[in-house]
Amino acid sequence: MPLDHTVKAFDADIGQLRGMISQMGGLAEDAIAQAMQALARPDPALAARVRADDKAIDAIEAEVERLAVRIIALRAPMAVDLREVVAALKIAAVVERIGDYAKNIAKRVPMIANATDGGDHRIEPISLLPSMARMASDMVRQALDAFAARDAQAAVRVVNSDAALDDFYDSIFRTLVTYMVENPRTISQVAHLLFVAKNLERIGDHATNVAEMVYFAATGTQMADRDRGGPDKDLP
Amino acid sequence: MPLDHTVKAFDADIGQLRGMISQMGGLAEDAIAQAMQALARPDPALAARVRADDKAIDAIEAEVERLAVRIIALRAPMAVDLREVVAALKIAAVVERIGDYAKNIAKRVPMIANATDGGDHRIEPISLLPSMARMASDMVRQALDAFAARDAQAAVRVVNSDAALDDFYDSIFRTLVTYMVENPRTISQVAHLLFVAKNLERIGDHATNVAEMVYFAATGTQMADRDRGGPDKDLP
Repeated sequence: MPLDHTVKAFDADIGQLRGMISQMGGLAEDAIAQAMQALARPDPALAARVRADDKAIDAIEAEVERLAVRIIALRAPMAVDLREVVAALKIAAVVERIGDYAKNIAKRVPMIANATDGGDHRIEPISLLPSMARMASDMVRQALDAFAARDAQAAVRVVNSDAALDDFYDSIFRTLVTYMVENPRTISQVAHLLFVAKNLERIGDHATNVAEMVYFAATGTQMADRDRGGPDKDLP
Repeated sequence: MPLDHTVKAFDADIGQLRGMISQMGGLAEDAIAQAMQALARPDPALAARVRADDKAIDAIEAEVERLAVRIIALRAPMAVDLREVVAALKIAAVVERIGDYAKNIAKRVPMIANATDGGDHRIEPISLLPSMARMASDMVRQALDAFAARDAQAAVRVVNSDAALDDFYDSIFRTLVTYMVENPRTISQVAHLLFVAKNLERIGDHATNVAEMVYFAATGTQMADRDRGGPDKDLP
Protein backbone atom coordinates (compact mmCIF):
# COMPACT_ATOMS: atom_id res chain seq x y z
CA MET A 1 0.00 0.00 0.00
CA PRO A 2 2.27 2.79 -1.22
CA LEU A 3 -0.35 5.51 -0.73
CA ASP A 4 -0.84 4.60 2.90
CA HIS A 5 2.92 4.52 3.33
CA THR A 6 3.20 7.99 1.81
CA VAL A 7 0.48 9.37 4.07
CA LYS A 8 2.17 7.96 7.16
CA ALA A 9 5.54 9.31 6.06
CA PHE A 10 4.00 12.73 5.53
CA ASP A 11 2.37 12.66 8.98
CA ALA A 12 5.70 11.75 10.54
CA ASP A 13 7.42 14.59 8.65
CA ILE A 14 4.84 17.19 9.60
CA GLY A 15 4.95 15.98 13.20
CA GLN A 16 8.70 16.54 13.19
CA LEU A 17 8.26 20.03 11.69
CA ARG A 18 5.75 20.92 14.38
CA GLY A 19 8.03 19.63 17.10
CA MET A 20 10.93 21.74 15.85
CA ILE A 21 8.80 24.87 15.67
CA SER A 22 7.45 24.27 19.16
CA GLN A 23 11.03 23.88 20.38
CA MET A 24 12.08 27.13 18.66
CA GLY A 25 9.12 28.89 20.25
CA GLY A 26 10.10 27.68 23.72
CA LEU A 27 13.66 28.92 23.22
CA ALA A 28 12.39 32.30 21.97
CA GLU A 29 10.12 32.68 25.02
CA ASP A 30 13.05 31.82 27.30
CA ALA A 31 15.20 34.37 25.50
CA ILE A 32 12.61 37.12 26.01
CA ALA A 33 12.16 36.29 29.72
CA GLN A 34 15.91 36.08 30.37
CA ALA A 35 16.67 39.28 28.44
CA MET A 36 14.11 41.12 30.57
CA GLN A 37 15.59 39.64 33.78
CA ALA A 38 19.04 40.71 32.65
CA LEU A 39 17.67 44.21 32.05
CA ALA A 40 15.82 44.51 35.36
CA ARG A 41 18.62 43.32 37.69
CA PRO A 42 20.83 44.38 35.70
CA ASP A 43 22.83 41.24 34.88
CA PRO A 44 25.22 41.66 31.91
CA ALA A 45 26.47 38.06 32.24
CA LEU A 46 22.93 36.72 31.75
CA ALA A 47 22.53 39.13 28.83
CA ALA A 48 25.67 37.69 27.25
CA ARG A 49 24.25 34.18 27.68
CA VAL A 50 21.00 35.18 25.91
CA ARG A 51 23.05 36.47 22.98
CA ALA A 52 25.05 33.24 22.78
CA ASP A 53 21.99 31.00 23.09
CA ASP A 54 20.39 32.59 20.02
CA LYS A 55 22.57 30.36 17.81
CA ALA A 56 20.43 27.36 18.87
CA ILE A 57 17.29 29.02 17.47
CA ASP A 58 19.08 29.84 14.22
CA ALA A 59 20.22 26.22 13.90
CA ILE A 60 16.69 24.83 14.27
CA GLU A 61 15.40 27.29 11.68
CA ALA A 62 17.93 25.95 9.18
CA GLU A 63 16.75 22.40 10.01
CA VAL A 64 13.09 23.36 9.48
CA GLU A 65 13.96 24.85 6.10
CA ARG A 66 15.80 21.72 4.96
CA LEU A 67 13.01 19.41 6.11
CA ALA A 68 10.19 21.55 4.65
CA VAL A 69 11.84 21.73 1.24
CA ARG A 70 12.46 17.98 1.32
CA ILE A 71 8.82 17.32 2.20
CA ILE A 72 7.55 19.49 -0.66
CA ALA A 73 9.94 17.89 -3.14
CA LEU A 74 9.53 14.24 -2.06
CA ARG A 75 5.96 13.97 -0.72
CA ALA A 76 4.35 16.50 -3.07
CA PRO A 77 1.69 17.47 -0.48
CA MET A 78 -1.51 19.12 -1.74
CA ALA A 79 -3.94 21.78 -0.48
CA VAL A 80 -4.06 22.02 3.32
CA ASP A 81 -0.97 19.82 3.74
CA LEU A 82 1.10 21.96 1.37
CA ARG A 83 -0.16 25.12 3.09
CA GLU A 84 0.92 23.72 6.44
CA VAL A 85 4.44 22.90 5.25
CA VAL A 86 4.84 26.36 3.71
CA ALA A 87 3.46 27.91 6.91
CA ALA A 88 6.01 25.94 8.95
CA LEU A 89 8.81 27.27 6.73
CA LYS A 90 7.63 30.86 7.14
CA ILE A 91 6.81 30.58 10.85
CA ALA A 92 10.30 29.25 11.58
CA ALA A 93 11.75 32.35 9.90
CA VAL A 94 9.51 34.62 12.01
CA VAL A 95 10.37 32.84 15.28
CA GLU A 96 14.04 33.19 14.40
CA ARG A 97 13.49 36.95 14.14
CA ILE A 98 11.64 36.98 17.47
CA GLY A 99 14.80 35.43 18.93
CA ASP A 100 16.81 38.22 17.28
CA TYR A 101 14.67 40.85 19.02
CA ALA A 102 15.28 39.18 22.40
CA LYS A 103 18.99 39.09 21.57
CA ASN A 104 18.90 42.78 20.70
CA ILE A 105 17.31 43.57 24.09
CA ALA A 106 20.10 41.59 25.76
CA LYS A 107 22.67 43.52 23.73
CA ARG A 108 21.37 46.81 25.12
CA VAL A 109 21.59 45.69 28.78
CA PRO A 110 25.17 46.90 29.34
CA MET A 111 24.39 50.26 27.69
CA ILE A 112 21.37 50.79 29.97
CA ALA A 113 23.02 49.31 33.10
CA ASN A 114 25.46 52.23 33.19
CA ALA A 115 22.67 54.33 34.60
CA THR A 116 20.92 51.73 36.73
CA ASP A 117 23.68 50.12 38.77
CA GLY A 118 24.98 53.37 40.24
CA GLY A 119 21.72 54.04 42.06
CA ASP A 120 22.26 57.72 41.37
CA HIS A 121 19.76 58.01 38.55
CA ARG A 122 17.87 54.71 38.44
CA ILE A 123 15.43 54.87 35.50
CA GLU A 124 11.98 54.31 37.01
CA PRO A 125 10.05 53.61 33.75
CA ILE A 126 12.16 50.44 33.35
CA SER A 127 9.64 48.84 35.74
CA LEU A 128 6.91 49.08 33.06
CA LEU A 129 8.75 46.84 30.61
CA PRO A 130 8.42 43.37 32.22
CA SER A 131 4.59 43.49 31.93
CA MET A 132 4.87 44.50 28.31
CA ALA A 133 7.34 41.65 27.72
CA ARG A 134 4.97 39.10 29.27
CA MET A 135 2.16 40.34 27.03
CA ALA A 136 4.37 39.97 23.94
CA SER A 137 5.66 36.57 25.02
CA ASP A 138 2.10 35.31 25.67
CA MET A 139 1.18 36.30 22.10
CA VAL A 140 4.10 34.26 20.76
CA ARG A 141 3.08 31.17 22.76
CA GLN A 142 -0.60 31.50 21.79
CA ALA A 143 0.26 31.91 18.10
CA LEU A 144 2.43 28.78 18.17
CA ASP A 145 -0.22 26.85 20.11
CA ALA A 146 -2.70 27.85 17.39
CA PHE A 147 -0.28 26.45 14.80
CA ALA A 148 0.11 23.16 16.69
CA ALA A 149 -3.69 22.82 16.97
CA ARG A 150 -4.48 24.16 13.44
CA ASP A 151 -6.88 26.47 15.29
CA ALA A 152 -7.97 29.40 13.09
CA GLN A 153 -10.13 30.99 15.81
CA ALA A 154 -7.26 31.00 18.31
CA ALA A 155 -5.19 32.70 15.59
CA VAL A 156 -7.85 35.43 15.25
CA ARG A 157 -7.66 36.03 19.01
CA VAL A 158 -3.88 36.54 18.83
CA VAL A 159 -4.28 39.08 16.03
CA ASN A 160 -6.90 40.97 18.02
CA SER A 161 -4.76 41.08 21.16
CA ASP A 162 -2.05 43.01 19.32
CA ALA A 163 -3.96 46.30 19.65
CA ALA A 164 -3.54 46.19 23.45
CA LEU A 165 0.20 45.66 23.09
CA ASP A 166 0.41 48.59 20.66
CA ASP A 167 -1.43 50.81 23.15
CA PHE A 168 0.96 49.69 25.88
CA TYR A 169 3.88 50.59 23.63
CA ASP A 170 2.46 54.04 22.83
CA SER A 171 2.00 54.71 26.52
CA ILE A 172 5.56 53.61 27.35
CA PHE A 173 6.94 55.67 24.46
CA ARG A 174 5.29 58.81 25.87
CA THR A 175 6.43 57.97 29.41
CA LEU A 176 10.02 57.51 28.28
CA VAL A 177 10.05 60.75 26.27
CA THR A 178 8.67 62.65 29.29
CA TYR A 179 11.32 61.01 31.46
CA MET A 180 14.04 62.14 29.04
CA VAL A 181 12.80 65.73 29.16
CA GLU A 182 12.84 65.71 32.96
CA ASN A 183 16.11 63.75 33.32
CA PRO A 184 18.37 64.87 30.48
CA ARG A 185 21.39 63.10 32.01
CA THR A 186 19.71 59.73 31.29
CA ILE A 187 18.80 60.44 27.65
CA SER A 188 21.38 58.06 26.20
CA GLN A 189 20.20 55.18 28.42
CA VAL A 190 16.52 55.93 27.92
CA ALA A 191 17.03 56.02 24.14
CA HIS A 192 18.10 52.37 24.41
CA LEU A 193 14.99 51.67 26.50
CA LEU A 194 12.87 53.15 23.68
CA PHE A 195 14.35 50.47 21.43
CA VAL A 196 13.71 47.76 24.02
CA ALA A 197 10.03 48.78 24.12
CA LYS A 198 9.97 48.89 20.32
CA ASN A 199 11.50 45.40 20.15
CA LEU A 200 8.73 44.07 22.39
CA GLU A 201 6.12 45.75 20.22
CA ARG A 202 7.74 44.15 17.16
CA ILE A 203 7.67 40.73 18.84
CA GLY A 204 3.90 41.21 19.13
CA ASP A 205 3.73 42.14 15.44
CA HIS A 206 5.62 38.97 14.57
CA ALA A 207 3.31 36.85 16.72
CA THR A 208 0.48 38.48 14.76
CA ASN A 209 2.18 37.51 11.49
CA VAL A 210 2.48 33.92 12.72
CA ALA A 211 -1.22 33.92 13.64
CA GLU A 212 -2.12 35.18 10.15
CA MET A 213 -0.06 32.37 8.62
CA VAL A 214 -1.77 29.82 10.88
CA TYR A 215 -5.17 31.16 9.80
CA PHE A 216 -4.25 30.89 6.13
CA ALA A 217 -2.79 27.39 6.55
CA ALA A 218 -5.92 26.19 8.35
CA THR A 219 -8.55 27.85 6.15
CA GLY A 220 -6.95 28.55 2.76
CA THR A 221 -8.10 32.17 2.95
CA GLN A 222 -6.46 35.32 4.28
CA MET A 223 -7.81 36.62 7.56
CA ALA A 224 -10.41 39.23 6.60
CA ASP A 225 -10.26 42.71 8.13
CA ARG A 226 -13.72 42.15 9.56
CA ASP A 227 -12.28 39.29 11.67
CA ARG A 228 -9.91 41.70 13.34
CA GLY A 229 -10.68 44.12 16.11
CA GLY A 230 -7.77 46.47 15.52
CA PRO A 231 -6.98 48.94 12.75
CA ASP A 232 -4.84 48.11 9.73
CA LYS A 233 -1.41 47.06 11.01
CA ASP A 234 1.49 49.14 9.90
CA LEU A 235 4.74 47.21 10.24
CA PRO A 236 7.30 47.47 11.55
CA MET B 1 12.09 15.20 -25.36
CA PRO B 2 10.46 15.46 -21.95
CA LEU B 3 13.71 16.21 -20.06
CA ASP B 4 14.55 19.10 -22.35
CA HIS B 5 11.02 20.35 -22.00
CA THR B 6 11.31 20.21 -18.19
CA VAL B 7 14.60 22.10 -18.23
CA LYS B 8 13.15 24.82 -20.44
CA ALA B 9 10.06 25.10 -18.26
CA PHE B 10 12.28 25.42 -15.18
CA ASP B 11 14.37 28.12 -16.81
CA ALA B 12 11.22 30.04 -17.70
CA ASP B 13 9.94 29.68 -14.13
CA ILE B 14 13.16 30.82 -12.53
CA GLY B 15 13.36 33.72 -14.99
CA GLN B 16 9.90 34.77 -13.90
CA LEU B 17 10.90 34.50 -10.22
CA ARG B 18 13.97 36.66 -10.83
CA GLY B 19 11.88 39.23 -12.67
CA MET B 20 9.42 39.50 -9.81
CA ILE B 21 12.17 39.90 -7.22
CA SER B 22 13.88 42.53 -9.31
CA GLN B 23 10.56 44.36 -9.56
CA MET B 24 10.04 44.15 -5.78
CA GLY B 25 13.55 45.49 -5.26
CA GLY B 26 12.87 48.47 -7.53
CA LEU B 27 9.68 49.27 -5.62
CA ALA B 28 11.51 48.98 -2.28
CA GLU B 29 14.26 51.34 -3.46
CA ASP B 30 11.62 53.83 -4.63
CA ALA B 31 9.87 53.56 -1.28
CA ILE B 32 13.09 54.34 0.61
CA ALA B 33 13.90 57.33 -1.62
CA GLN B 34 10.37 58.75 -1.45
CA ALA B 35 10.08 58.25 2.31
CA MET B 36 13.31 60.21 2.77
CA GLN B 37 12.08 62.97 0.43
CA ALA B 38 8.83 63.13 2.40
CA LEU B 39 10.88 63.45 5.59
CA ALA B 40 13.26 66.12 4.29
CA ARG B 41 10.68 68.50 2.78
CA PRO B 42 8.48 67.56 4.87
CA ASP B 43 5.69 66.24 2.63
CA PRO B 44 3.02 64.25 4.53
CA ALA B 45 1.03 63.63 1.31
CA LEU B 46 4.03 61.90 -0.28
CA ALA B 47 4.51 59.94 2.96
CA ALA B 48 0.89 58.77 2.75
CA ARG B 49 1.51 57.62 -0.84
CA VAL B 50 4.57 55.59 0.22
CA ARG B 51 2.43 53.85 2.84
CA ALA B 52 -0.29 53.04 0.29
CA ASP B 53 2.17 51.84 -2.36
CA ASP B 54 3.58 49.21 0.00
CA LYS B 55 0.62 46.95 -0.83
CA ALA B 56 2.11 46.39 -4.31
CA ILE B 57 5.30 44.94 -2.78
CA ASP B 58 3.25 42.66 -0.51
CA ALA B 59 1.25 41.42 -3.51
CA ILE B 60 4.38 40.47 -5.47
CA GLU B 61 5.77 38.62 -2.45
CA ALA B 62 2.62 36.49 -2.32
CA GLU B 63 3.05 35.76 -6.06
CA VAL B 64 6.69 34.74 -5.56
CA GLU B 65 5.67 32.37 -2.79
CA ARG B 66 2.99 30.70 -4.91
CA LEU B 67 5.31 30.31 -7.89
CA ALA B 68 8.27 29.05 -5.82
CA VAL B 69 6.17 26.37 -4.11
CA ARG B 70 4.72 25.32 -7.47
CA ILE B 71 8.20 25.04 -8.98
CA ILE B 72 9.47 22.88 -6.10
CA ALA B 73 6.39 20.65 -6.24
CA LEU B 74 6.11 20.30 -10.05
CA ARG B 75 9.67 20.57 -11.37
CA ALA B 76 11.46 18.91 -8.43
CA PRO B 77 14.63 20.98 -8.95
CA MET B 78 17.89 19.63 -7.50
CA ALA B 79 21.05 21.11 -5.96
CA VAL B 80 21.84 24.63 -7.20
CA ASP B 81 18.43 24.98 -8.87
CA LEU B 82 16.56 24.05 -5.67
CA ARG B 83 18.78 26.39 -3.65
CA GLU B 84 17.97 29.21 -6.04
CA VAL B 85 14.20 28.70 -5.76
CA VAL B 86 14.38 28.56 -1.95
CA ALA B 87 16.60 31.66 -1.98
CA ALA B 88 14.02 33.47 -4.14
CA LEU B 89 11.30 32.57 -1.64
CA LYS B 90 13.33 33.87 1.29
CA ILE B 91 14.66 36.94 -0.51
CA ALA B 92 11.11 38.00 -1.45
CA ALA B 93 10.18 37.86 2.26
CA VAL B 94 13.19 40.02 3.15
CA VAL B 95 12.48 42.60 0.43
CA GLU B 96 8.90 42.78 1.67
CA ARG B 97 10.28 43.69 5.11
CA ILE B 98 12.58 46.30 3.58
CA GLY B 99 9.43 47.84 2.11
CA ASP B 100 7.90 47.77 5.61
CA TYR B 101 10.85 49.74 7.00
CA ALA B 102 10.42 52.38 4.29
CA LYS B 103 6.71 52.48 5.12
CA ASN B 104 7.52 52.91 8.79
CA ILE B 105 9.78 55.89 7.98
CA ALA B 106 6.92 57.41 5.98
CA LYS B 107 4.58 56.83 8.93
CA ARG B 108 6.83 58.90 11.19
CA VAL B 109 6.95 61.91 8.81
CA PRO B 110 3.88 63.70 10.26
CA MET B 111 5.16 63.14 13.81
CA ILE B 112 8.54 64.66 12.95
CA ALA B 113 7.14 67.40 10.68
CA ASN B 114 5.50 69.08 13.69
CA ALA B 115 8.92 70.35 14.63
CA THR B 116 10.32 71.02 11.17
CA ASP B 117 7.63 72.99 9.35
CA GLY B 118 7.38 75.76 11.94
CA GLY B 119 10.95 76.88 11.35
CA ASP B 120 11.18 77.61 15.05
CA HIS B 121 13.18 74.56 16.01
CA ARG B 122 14.22 72.89 12.75
CA ILE B 123 16.10 69.69 13.62
CA GLU B 124 19.53 70.03 11.99
CA PRO B 125 20.67 66.37 12.29
CA ILE B 126 17.85 65.43 9.88
CA SER B 127 20.26 66.47 7.12
CA LEU B 128 22.49 63.45 7.92
CA LEU B 129 19.82 60.90 7.10
CA PRO B 130 19.57 61.11 3.28
CA SER B 131 23.22 60.00 2.87
CA MET B 132 22.61 57.09 5.22
CA ALA B 133 19.47 56.19 3.25
CA ARG B 134 21.40 56.18 -0.03
CA MET B 135 24.03 53.88 1.49
CA ALA B 136 21.32 51.47 2.69
CA SER B 137 19.45 51.60 -0.63
CA ASP B 138 22.66 50.93 -2.58
CA MET B 139 23.21 47.80 -0.49
CA VAL B 140 19.71 46.58 -1.36
CA ARG B 141 20.29 47.10 -5.09
CA GLN B 142 23.73 45.48 -5.02
CA ALA B 143 22.41 42.45 -3.11
CA LEU B 144 19.60 41.96 -5.64
CA ASP B 145 21.99 42.46 -8.55
CA ALA B 146 24.18 39.75 -7.00
CA PHE B 147 21.12 37.46 -6.92
CA ALA B 148 20.26 38.19 -10.56
CA ALA B 149 23.87 37.44 -11.58
CA ARG B 150 24.36 34.47 -9.16
CA ASP B 151 27.51 36.38 -8.14
CA ALA B 152 28.89 35.11 -4.81
CA GLN B 153 31.77 37.59 -4.76
CA ALA B 154 29.42 40.55 -5.22
CA ALA B 155 27.41 39.15 -2.30
CA VAL B 156 30.54 39.14 -0.11
CA ARG B 157 31.13 42.81 -0.98
CA VAL B 158 27.60 43.70 0.16
CA VAL B 159 28.12 41.92 3.49
CA ASN B 160 31.40 43.76 4.02
CA SER B 161 29.89 47.16 3.28
CA ASP B 162 27.44 46.78 6.17
CA ALA B 163 30.10 47.74 8.74
CA ALA B 164 30.29 51.26 7.26
CA LEU B 165 26.51 51.64 7.51
CA ASP B 166 26.60 50.46 11.13
CA ASP B 167 29.31 53.05 11.91
CA PHE B 168 27.19 55.73 10.24
CA TYR B 169 24.24 54.68 12.38
CA ASP B 170 26.28 54.77 15.61
CA SER B 171 27.48 58.26 14.74
CA ILE B 172 23.95 59.48 13.98
CA PHE B 173 22.64 57.88 17.18
CA ARG B 174 25.19 59.83 19.24
CA THR B 175 24.47 63.04 17.33
CA LEU B 176 20.73 62.71 17.91
CA VAL B 177 21.15 61.98 21.63
CA THR B 178 23.39 65.04 22.00
CA TYR B 179 20.83 67.09 20.10
CA MET B 180 18.10 65.91 22.49
CA VAL B 181 20.16 66.95 25.51
CA GLU B 182 20.72 70.40 24.05
CA ASN B 183 17.17 70.84 22.66
CA PRO B 184 14.82 69.17 25.13
CA ARG B 185 11.76 70.68 23.40
CA THR B 186 12.46 68.50 20.35
CA ILE B 187 12.91 65.20 22.22
CA SER B 188 9.65 63.69 21.01
CA GLN B 189 10.44 64.44 17.35
CA VAL B 190 14.07 63.36 17.65
CA ALA B 191 12.99 60.06 19.25
CA HIS B 192 11.16 59.35 15.98
CA LEU B 193 14.30 60.26 14.06
CA LEU B 194 16.23 57.70 16.14
CA PHE B 195 13.83 55.09 14.79
CA VAL B 196 14.23 56.39 11.23
CA ALA B 197 18.00 55.96 11.54
CA LYS B 198 17.48 52.52 13.07
CA ASN B 199 15.16 51.54 10.21
CA LEU B 200 17.85 52.48 7.69
CA GLU B 201 20.41 50.45 9.63
CA ARG B 202 17.98 47.51 9.60
CA ILE B 203 17.51 47.87 5.84
CA GLY B 204 21.28 47.41 5.55
CA ASP B 205 21.07 44.31 7.78
CA HIS B 206 18.36 42.89 5.54
CA ALA B 207 20.43 43.60 2.41
CA THR B 208 23.21 41.69 4.18
CA ASN B 209 20.82 38.79 4.82
CA VAL B 210 19.89 38.76 1.13
CA ALA B 211 23.58 38.73 0.19
CA GLU B 212 24.18 35.77 2.52
CA MET B 213 21.29 33.90 0.87
CA VAL B 214 22.70 34.69 -2.58
CA TYR B 215 26.10 33.36 -1.51
CA PHE B 216 24.56 30.14 -0.22
CA ALA B 217 22.41 29.68 -3.32
CA ALA B 218 25.40 30.18 -5.61
CA THR B 219 27.96 28.12 -3.69
CA GLY B 220 26.04 25.65 -1.49
CA THR B 221 28.04 26.78 1.55
CA GLN B 222 27.43 29.44 4.18
CA MET B 223 29.58 32.55 3.89
CA ALA B 224 32.53 31.94 6.22
CA ASP B 225 33.48 34.54 8.82
CA ARG B 226 36.88 34.81 7.20
CA ASP B 227 35.18 36.14 4.04
CA ARG B 228 33.74 39.04 6.00
CA GLY B 229 35.51 42.18 7.02
CA GLY B 230 33.22 43.11 9.88
CA PRO B 231 32.58 41.61 13.31
CA ASP B 232 29.84 39.08 14.01
CA LYS B 233 26.53 40.65 13.10
CA ASP B 234 24.02 41.05 15.86
CA LEU B 235 20.51 41.48 14.49
CA PRO B 236 18.28 43.35 14.67
